[in-house]
Amino acid sequence: MKEKNIEKTKAVLKIQSEIRRILGEELRKRRFIEISPVILSPITDPLNHPTTPAHINCYGKNYNVTQSMIFHKQLALRTLEKIFVFSPNVRIEPLDKKDTGRHLFEFTQLDLEVKDVKREDVMRLCEELLIATITSIKRGCKQELKMLGRGLIVPKNPFKQIRHVDAYKQYGEDFESVISKTYNEPVWIIDIPLTSREFYDKENLEKPGFLRDMDLIYPEGYGEALSGGEREYEYERIKERILKKGQNLSQFKEYLELAEKGLPSSAGFGIGIERLTRFICGLKRIEESSLFPKIPGKACI
Amino acid sequence: MKEKNIEKTKAVLKIQSEIRRILGEELRKRRFIEISPVILSPITDPLNHPTTPAHINCYGKNYNVTQSMIFHKQLALRTLEKIFVFSPNVRIEPLDKKDTGRHLFEFTQLDLEVKDVKREDVMRLCEELLIATITSIKRGCKQELKMLGRGLIVPKNPFKQIRHVDAYKQYGEDFESVISKTYNEPVWIIDIPLTSREFYDKENLEKPGFLRDMDLIYPEGYGEALSGGEREYEYERIKERILKKGQNLSQFKEYLELAEKGLPSSAGFGIGIERLTRFICGLKRIEESSLFPKIPGKACI
Repeated sequence: MKEKNIEKTKAVLKIQSEIRRILGEELRKRRFIEISPVILSPITDPLNHPTTPAHINCYGKNYNVTQSMIFHKQLALRTLEKIFVFSPNVRIEPLDKKDTGRHLFEFTQLDLEVKDVKREDVMRLCEELLIATITSIKRGCKQELKMLGRGLIVPKNPFKQIRHVDAYKQYGEDFESVISKTYNEPVWIIDIPLTSREFYDKENLEKPGFLRDMDLIYPEGYGEALSGGEREYEYERIKERILKKGQNLSQFKEYLELAEKGLPSSAGFGIGIERLTRFICGLKRIEESSLFPKIPGKACI
Repeated sequence: MKEKNIEKTKAVLKIQSEIRRILGEELRKRRFIEISPVILSPITDPLNHPTTPAHINCYGKNYNVTQSMIFHKQLALRTLEKIFVFSPNVRIEPLDKKDTGRHLFEFTQLDLEVKDVKREDVMRLCEELLIATITSIKRGCKQELKMLGRGLIVPKNPFKQIRHVDAYKQYGEDFESVISKTYNEPVWIIDIPLTSREFYDKENLEKPGFLRDMDLIYPEGYGEALSGGEREYEYERIKERILKKGQNLSQFKEYLELAEKGLPSSAGFGIGIERLTRFICGLKRIEESSLFPKIPGKACI
């Protein structure tokens, strides 16, 4: 690596380390408990887009490598009220994702979940976390931001909200990308249709077919920041949603057995640390946010 | 779970969350940078005891699930001076480990590495970290320790050191367990023979056959806390040590290619978070330290 590149990488890694610190601190202030990541489990997020499953045999049983900890977050809330975890996810993305500059096949998300709250509560929390992070990075990492040539604006809450149906109407199929390029503050997309998302996002029973969920879009063309929402937590509803999705109940056997005994209602989200680093540092490509980036289709270390 | 068990689990998880916070804070005070965990890589720690390899095919290439980040720590020090990472490790242990109360087939270690320092420097750092952690938990988690019935002693530094050869002579083959049961403060085992360890621990060239490394043993029968030491970093020495171990150079191809271009000298260690939680909370078995414990041989969630 050339000297200048090393200095740039150092600045990015220092900022990323600070991002982890600030997020952890802000959540602990709000009485969140940090739990351990889960890497292997018979159950993992099925996701709403195709990935190549990553399986490992342990003692004769088949385990998935975690695509997201959604189910474990729900299960953890049987014991705790507010949790977060820096959760490594493996998602073997289709090869057409290799040039997006936004996809890694291994990354870490700050995944959090809160018992008995609504979507709006975690949206407000997310806004506070992002504002605190950007404010603190601007104050504490002046030199690093300067070296990266990054001018950062602290966004103001509440962030703008656009309903999915309106976003589609106004900006077309590619609305996420258009909105990201159009705005200079983060924008919420809310009320995403049921068909576009996983079964575990809660359906709004007053507006059937739409979910009590949200995506956050970064400004300046950096694209999607996070997904989250309220969760289906009632056994019968969960089964119904899995079947509506055309998925097999057997795939979620262990989860359903536990859900039958009772899950708490909750809302939460997961925000990718590498994407947040990319946005805060103003990096062209996501692989610049990691010492050991996993780029789809490439042989990586 | 019964009400009393839930309260106990809550206390353990609160303390574990605090352990993560304190360790992170102490390391940041000392200008360490937190890096991201690595879950998949063509290279991982070969370990000195047999585990079932966990492989995943990504885009036609074979990846290991991380057993420890040792090589990535060395590679990271090409860019940074002092690093740490909360690193999830998967080690599919032999079935005879299922009843030890100390083994999980997935766990998290706080793994750290420092450029251009000696074993003694990271030993001193480790002592400071443990003292800070126990002091802070005693102060901040009084109620939780009381609920767990745990009386904790803050150890005094420097911790006692016993050379491996002397430990063996005085306490026999099972010295680790005997020492752990005999002492009421942590004890270092130093100068471990080359044949008992992985190739990457640095050989003491003034005492050939012995390593510049160490283990830490918890008191009160809680067994091994951590392993660490100085590292082999010179290309020729690394190759020699791999061959002396009877391992194939081809297994470490990607690592050797990078080592040939130059690695910094370093020392570091990895301390298991679940074992530290078990010790601090005074738990009978390690599975009590986790919401989703992975017990060798058992079907786990």
